[in-house]
Amino acid sequence: MTRYKATISYDGTLFAGFQRQTKVRSVQEEIEKTLERLNSGVPVKIHGAGRTDSGVHAYGQVIHFDLPQARDAERLRFGLDSQLPEDIDVVAVEQVGDDFHARYNKHSKTYEFLVDNGRPKNPMMRNYATSYPYPLDLSLMQEAIKDLEGTHDFTGFTASGTAVENKVRTITRATVNQDSKTGFLVFTFSGNGFLYKQVRNMVGTLLKIGNGRMPVSQIKTVLESQNRNLAGPTAAGNGLYLKEIIYED
Amino acid sequence: MTRYKATISYDGTLFAGFQRQTKVRSVQEEIEKTLERLNSGVPVKIHGAGRTDSGVHAYGQVIHFDLPQARDAERLRFGLDSQLPEDIDVVAVEQVGDDFHARYNKHSKTYEFLVDNGRPKNPMMRNYATSYPYPLDLSLMQEAIKDLEGTHDFTGFTASGTAVENKVRTITRATVNQDSKTGFLVFTFSGNGFLYKQVRNMVGTLLKIGNGRMPVSQIKTVLESQNRNLAGPTAAGNGLYLKEIIYED
Repeated sequence: MTRYKATISYDGTLFAGFQRQTKVRSVQEEIEKTLERLNSGVPVKIHGAGRTDSGVHAYGQVIHFDLPQARDAERLRFGLDSQLPEDIDVVAVEQVGDDFHARYNKHSKTYEFLVDNGRPKNPMMRNYATSYPYPLDLSLMQEAIKDLEGTHDFTGFTASGTAVENKVRTITRATVNQDSKTGFLVFTFSGNGFLYKQVRNMVGTLLKIGNGRMPVSQIKTVLESQNRNLAGPTAAGNGLYLKEIIYED
Repeated sequence: MTRYKATISYDGTLFAGFQRQTKVRSVQEEIEKTLERLNSGVPVKIHGAGRTDSGVHAYGQVIHFDLPQARDAERLRFGLDSQLPEDIDVVAVEQVGDDFHARYNKHSKTYEFLVDNGRPKNPMMRNYATSYPYPLDLSLMQEAIKDLEGTHDFTGFTASGTAVENKVRTITRATVNQDSKTGFLVFTFSGNGFLYKQVRNMVGTLLKIGNGRMPVSQIKTVLESQNRNLAGPTAAGNGLYLKEIIYED
């Protein structure tokens, strides 16, 4: 048995999400079907570093899986990439030790969130950025986003009813800038783990702050109160990208 | 009767092209249906500056149409934009004189063609750039593309059997550069008019030159011989954008 780590990118538009579910199209199912074909019809289970929701994109999702025999990594990458549907690409494959686990090995994740503030929006980007055609003050959002950095209990920014007990996470970097070429706002968050819908809820709150309908201090208020009702709405999934995952060691 | 000029953008992916045709979805039909609704059910015909093929995108297509009474231009833009499908946007509307004609008034057009030279390609851009996962020497293409500038008979770069008699056109600017952020190649062509499939045929030839399978002198050879068989293949429509149209006066 040989274990492989693969970095994959996908367009989330036509997927119900990363995780396999019955009756809907998932990234996991497409990759497992392709691996099964490459593995002489024997099923192969993949493990992802994290799930992504419906419509959410990835440039750097990481998965691992086992194959009965060792293969040339670049040939395996090419074979997988060629046989997968057009909206999934295999960026890199490498052989790893049997103790590597995409989800449980310590890692940091970076998410990006794109907002098209144009009016009208860019039609080519309607599935790849969230349209927000209202006034936004970038400097207010840049001030507020800094309060998200550090170690906090993010209960107020996750979906209610989440099964995870410990909601303390560390965000090492949180920034928002305007792309000089596209004019889009780019929110970037790096950290050791994110709760369900956390990024989209943080962005939804920051947009309300940028639009002047919540004070800059609202981020602190939500963190301290741990009250989801004080945060902004959940931003749509189409602007969200799982950008990069970096493992320790 | 009041004439309006509108600048529209659209994602060509789900259209059979700009021009109205039976049984397939076209940009023209969607806009005419929407204008008819806004015009109390009375049909309105639109005239585009040019046609775009299936899969071809536009940031700056220009159309004109007549309405029986004068309307506030920004309200008309907003009304049209709101009621049109998501993949068409109305960027600007202005009232113009009755002698304005989107097609016949003298204008210059700029087309852009995006090539994703990555391996693997960017899955988010699969409908918005043409994937070319082979080696390309940018400097060879930059040298060759200059031969397209100027006034030439472009017979060798158009589809055979084109009805247009006069195939002499002037290209005022032809460049190719690599976008530092995306890594994509960006071909830009400005001129007083382009023949059917001309841009895609020029790009297909330039890619062969960049890949070393045609000499840099091939552009001159095709122009002088007027022989379509000496040009490269027609590049796919998904990388092509009608970027801007500028009218004289």
